[in-house]
Amino acid sequence: MSDKSTKESLVTLLSDFGISDEYVAVMKGAIAQINPMLRVIDITHQIPSQNIEKARFCLMNAFAYFPQGTVHVAVVDPGVGGKRRAVAVELLQGFLVAPDNGLLSGVLSQNSAIAAVELTNPKYWLTSNPSITFHGRDIFAPVGAHLANGVCLNELGREIDLESLVKLNLPNCYQQDDFILGCIQYIDNFGNLVTNIPQSYVEGSSWSLEIKENIIKSQKTYSDANEGELIALIGSHGWVEIAVNCGSAQLRLGVDNGAQVRIFR
Amino acid sequence: MSDKSTKESLVTLLSDFGISDEYVAVMKGAIAQINPMLRVIDITHQIPSQNIEKARFCLMNAFAYFPQGTVHVAVVDPGVGGKRRAVAVELLQGFLVAPDNGLLSGVLSQNSAIAAVELTNPKYWLTSNPSITFHGRDIFAPVGAHLANGVCLNELGREIDLESLVKLNLPNCYQQDDFILGCIQYIDNFGNLVTNIPQSYVEGSSWSLEIKENIIKSQKTYSDANEGELIALIGSHGWVEIAVNCGSAQLRLGVDNGAQVRIFR
Amino acid sequence: MSDKSTKESLVTLLSDFGISDEYVAVMKGAIAQINPMLRVIDITHQIPSQNIEKARFCLMNAFAYFPQGTVHVAVVDPGVGGKRRAVAVELLQGFLVAPDNGLLSGVLSQNSAIAAVELTNPKYWLTSNPSITFHGRDIFAPVGAHLANGVCLNELGREIDLESLVKLNLPNCYQQDDFILGCIQYIDNFGNLVTNIPQSYVEGSSWSLEIKENIIKSQKTYSDANEGELIALIGSHGWVEIAVNCGSAQLRLGVDNGAQVRIFR
Repeated sequence: MSDKSTKESLVTLLSDFGISDEYVAVMKGAIAQINPMLRVIDITHQIPSQNIEKARFCLMNAFAYFPQGTVHVAVVDPGVGGKRRAVAVELLQGFLVAPDNGLLSGVLSQNSAIAAVELTNPKYWLTSNPSITFHGRDIFAPVGAHLANGVCLNELGREIDLESLVKLNLPNCYQQDDFILGCIQYIDNFGNLVTNIPQSYVEGSSWSLEIKENIIKSQKTYSDANEGELIALIGSHGWVEIAVNCGSAQLRLGVDNGAQVRIFR
Repeated sequence: MSDKSTKESLVTLLSDFGISDEYVAVMKGAIAQINPMLRVIDITHQIPSQNIEKARFCLMNAFAYFPQGTVHVAVVDPGVGGKRRAVAVELLQGFLVAPDNGLLSGVLSQNSAIAAVELTNPKYWLTSNPSITFHGRDIFAPVGAHLANGVCLNELGREIDLESLVKLNLPNCYQQDDFILGCIQYIDNFGNLVTNIPQSYVEGSSWSLEIKENIIKSQKTYSDANEGELIALIGSHGWVEIAVNCGSAQLRLGVDNGAQVRIFR
Repeated sequence: MSDKSTKESLVTLLSDFGISDEYVAVMKGAIAQINPMLRVIDITHQIPSQNIEKARFCLMNAFAYFPQGTVHVAVVDPGVGGKRRAVAVELLQGFLVAPDNGLLSGVLSQNSAIAAVELTNPKYWLTSNPSITFHGRDIFAPVGAHLANGVCLNELGREIDLESLVKLNLPNCYQQDDFILGCIQYIDNFGNLVTNIPQSYVEGSSWSLEIKENIIKSQKTYSDANEGELIALIGSHGWVEIAVNCGSAQLRLGVDNGAQVRIFR
């Protein structure tokens, strides 16, 4: 175990636990019991209860911005204590630790994985007799801390086929001859509507977007529009996004996840 | 002051300050002024304003998961600037720093204390002339940082009788011949209803629970029930808990803290 | 770059990003890529969207409580990608990094600045081709990390006149012969109403306060009043404040920011 791994390793946490209860702190306590020097960064704990899609999206978008070797522990886990597997995945850029329910499938759609294991070795758990309702505390956070400490992936359990990891069945976007068909896949705290249409589909040309009978012209940034005006742009996530300058596109348009979007070039 | 104490010591913070204002950050700044190397972990700052019962519950449940020597600073303090005492308590496992209003009585009901002091020595405060409305910043956080730095408890003020620390007068649960009578003591972010009936009262037998004319059978974990179904189980806190698989038991049952619960074995 | 600067430097973050999305974590990832040993403290991320006034107030009140050399990165940035400047300011006590939109004008009204630069040197950005919607990630957080690492202010871009930094045009309070006229400038999480009348205007004498036809006598602290009673006091911020003991003055009085307040000595 190198000096580097103990001193500079990062663990991130993502969950649907909220921040009103002591659950997140208890995961951090479990990590500190293993190595009090580990740095822990919260991605978010405000994922709506059991919403694996939103967790998948946030983790996918955060992943690339963390240093090499970061261990991401993500716990949105409606199947806790049931038959779903607990897994860890090694990638070139870092590690993922989570229930195998599709939560990791966003990161894995954008980054090559090296190997995956099922977490079957209780040596790296908080206790060999874990609770059946809080694997975040008893399994995922401790395993993440051990990975950040330099423990090898194959110590954590039996290897599993990368292809066997659960993928979420999400809507795709379709390129037609004269338009692209997609949908809203995420709505952020500002009320910006993030589509599932990647930047690469529209880059380098001018385009317009249709949603709920509104035609919106593409712009470079929020302040290219007047205050209160709808705009379409490539968001910082790298997806086509609909926003209102100094306002909320969600409130304006009254749409939800899954709402259909069409782009004309 | 050992190398260990400065490099690996942890301070936790719990309060009802919320996270919209700068109050929590100011406590962390006060700690960093004393020792920028100290690690700080938030337990929660979302305790409802002045709700000592909820603060007591969260601290009690988090305490056991932190490393030996952790200093827990807890500030839910409706009596700030008045006659209530500010205290620090030493336990085998760590330290508590808080107003003496019952907030600590949960941890102290489960863990033996070694000694307690009233915080009367201004040498360890942020200023010898503290504000009368924000002792979190001026007294509790600085004292916590000094404890984490290795300052001895008896330096902080005059010793007080452990028996004199305020206890909350909370409902007990009662074991009768053929049932156990308890109540809801906490409702978490998922809408899980946590009773005041400890695990040890029901372990090793099968049991059912009655609440508001619902009879609910005990299960091992959330996913043992169908989606949307009510279940009773031993929660990760170690208390009997009522939940809805992939839903909120609070919304389903429309109950509040204090609601009566009866268990039949 | 001294040992001190890499090991003990602090970066604070303030924004209107909320904590539901991964935006704040992504800024922390960008900082960790530059130096994983830097400590990061959140001031708040719950500033209402694009509310520069509230951001200015929170930063102003937090600033004094952080150690010498702390770097404060503040991103409430409705003009992102437009013509507003990105700036860094050096003060005796630390550094500020933010869009030049008035956000810094509170700190600068209370502390002398040494120099300011416009952030024009892409060497210290996350990428030389930053997104046009998320300068927090691509410019502000990385520049803050480099400052905390010991990079000199004048490396970051061209020097600008301190007098050219944007000031918010906020209401003043006025001292008349027999009264002081002010207004509510901030309402905190407890519902305490913070006026724009500084402590120094009322110290050392007894006084009363009038708001919405209520006359409220000054007290030392919350618990000097009966539960539920309105009180006026000098708050921990150093401003005259209106509160309700164990309650919310905002709910009681139904007032908003800007509401007029009059003090009689």
